[in-house]
Amino acid sequence: MSIKITGVGSYIPNKVEKNSDFQKHEFLYEDGSAFGQSNTVIIEKFKAITGIHERRYIQKELNNSDIAYLAAINAIEDAKIDPEELDYLIVAHNYGDVIHDDMQSDTVPSLATRVKNKLRIKNPKCVAYDVLFGCPGWIEAVIQANAFIKSGIAKKCLVIGSETLSRVVDKHDRDSMIYSDGAGATVIEASDEEGGILAHESATYSFEEANFIFFGKSNNRDSNDNRRYIKMHGRKIYEFALSHVPAAMKTCLEKSGKSISDVKKILIHQANEKMDEAIINRFYKQFKTPVPEGVMPMSINKLGNSSVATVPTLLDLILKGKMKDQEIKKGDVVILASVGAGMNINAIVYQF
Amino acid sequence: MSIKITGVGSYIPNKVEKNSDFQKHEFLYEDGSAFGQSNTVIIEKFKAITGIHERRYIQKELNNSDIAYLAAINAIEDAKIDPEELDYLIVAHNYGDVIHDDMQSDTVPSLATRVKNKLRIKNPKCVAYDVLFGCPGWIEAVIQANAFIKSGIAKKCLVIGSETLSRVVDKHDRDSMIYSDGAGATVIEASDEEGGILAHESATYSFEEANFIFFGKSNNRDSNDNRRYIKMHGRKIYEFALSHVPAAMKTCLEKSGKSISDVKKILIHQANEKMDEAIINRFYKQFKTPVPEGVMPMSINKLGNSSVATVPTLLDLILKGKMKDQEIKKGDVVILASVGAGMNINAIVYQF
Repeated sequence: MSIKITGVGSYIPNKVEKNSDFQKHEFLYEDGSAFGQSNTVIIEKFKAITGIHERRYIQKELNNSDIAYLAAINAIEDAKIDPEELDYLIVAHNYGDVIHDDMQSDTVPSLATRVKNKLRIKNPKCVAYDVLFGCPGWIEAVIQANAFIKSGIAKKCLVIGSETLSRVVDKHDRDSMIYSDGAGATVIEASDEEGGILAHESATYSFEEANFIFFGKSNNRDSNDNRRYIKMHGRKIYEFALSHVPAAMKTCLEKSGKSISDVKKILIHQANEKMDEAIINRFYKQFKTPVPEGVMPMSINKLGNSSVATVPTLLDLILKGKMKDQEIKKGDVVILASVGAGMNINAIVYQF
Repeated sequence: MSIKITGVGSYIPNKVEKNSDFQKHEFLYEDGSAFGQSNTVIIEKFKAITGIHERRYIQKELNNSDIAYLAAINAIEDAKIDPEELDYLIVAHNYGDVIHDDMQSDTVPSLATRVKNKLRIKNPKCVAYDVLFGCPGWIEAVIQANAFIKSGIAKKCLVIGSETLSRVVDKHDRDSMIYSDGAGATVIEASDEEGGILAHESATYSFEEANFIFFGKSNNRDSNDNRRYIKMHGRKIYEFALSHVPAAMKTCLEKSGKSISDVKKILIHQANEKMDEAIINRFYKQFKTPVPEGVMPMSINKLGNSSVATVPTLLDLILKGKMKDQEIKKGDVVILASVGAGMNINAIVYQF
């Protein structure tokens, strides 16, 4: 028995927020001091490092569970399954449903329950729950679905990653330009075909790293804003990711029994272009192999960092032929990898 | 191989909130209208139905992840394991960390990461994540740990249920008297002994029931309070639980291969005394068997409903000899069962 992705789907919000839309923001350092640079310079530097030209935000009327549902519909249609046959419906997210212009995260009922309700699934044996595991949540939920199928308690699982970071950003924080909204979904099934999930690897580094990504006050110390927002120590994350992600990917590849030359694509969490490139360079360096051209498809320039949604969205775009010069063919070995709040790291070696 | 609970622990907050402490609250119906009864009458009726005399709240300085950690320490000591050997650290909760007098739920990093950090566990292979599954979250997380062990990806898991409902209650809602704070934890391990988890059963009823427990505005419609709080449709939940929980428990018992006469204890989520009694009555009625005296230990009268924490806390109290006239002996078959937001139901048949 193998465990395969039999359907993919995504929801890319239609509101485009361009870098120029941040021109009027008052960016401040964490201590509240000014940058002493024009926003034009700040934005150009930001673009050079992250690769982000624009990102997507959901419309005011929508919420996180709505877009999770929209991605789910696509994946179910693609898999050509009856949703009533699903044994699990898992939603990875981090902030729950956050209504536009509201500061409360709504997580009861779970987003998985909300999606199951919207999908009009009646079968109570379709168990719906949420996973919180930082940006690597979607890959981790796939690993959980894999365990449920392997242990015999499930055959078909719907695994969604959905996030609306636009609802938790501090507009005085330069990092606010990184974050975006999106949802990706996959159907995971037990299969008689070869391939599928060959190996996986997960880790939580919390001894020193627990608060590299955290919930904190606005950089505007003069305001009466007591609200907390998504915050990160970018430099520490960059160094952490470079130290640990390439090694985790290597361990995972070794477990899979495949060699570096078998790897056709690496779909990595779209956190930051320069960081992702540095990770891939170091990954191949471990094998004394040059980085193959086009091995790492990137969507961050247009879509930003939508947390748990980046990897499944990227996969959906490629498999549906929507990424220029990118394709995955039957038999191809692909690495999925992510890093984020926790600090968590994970990887899957998958053969299509 | 069996999968066994090798250690239990709990944290019971030391602040006792008595029913008399609610005497000065202004209770209102959902539509904002007055009850037309004295608080003395309201509180007496409440006590007669729920069985709750008092409940526990955490101190101002503490947060949800702090008490999760305190319960975890107890469970680790009880299991006599080195925490560095843990493969998973799973925290079930619903509202994250909510600071006293603040309305934001903080879920990044995950509570599991925070607990792992406080436990000073260095091993990155101890994967820390959170599960959101309503009040049945702790039992569901045990079912997940069971799947990880069965599928060969884990040997030792720490599973915690922790909640601080005192931080999300609407003081104008009579139901606010139900909710309390607490944390329970267990170590789950692969074992060569007999018994352990014999069967489990989970379900999500979301077609009509998704919003039986929800996040809603204060019953005080005149105030400028835009904050949302934990809310429930008590009557609907009561009817739902009676319709579905006894049947789920019966299915689980049948799967386990044990008979009704083997069942020594039923540890049910402490939601409401009358409801729990009605569930147990209907459960035994399915077997045309009278309810054995003392089969359902109850802690709700002193501890209230602490969501995910009630079942592991109850288990800890019994196993540590802290519940009058209650004990579990080696070889005893016990049913763990819960129902809550989702609406989710689950059960485990376990042999000690």
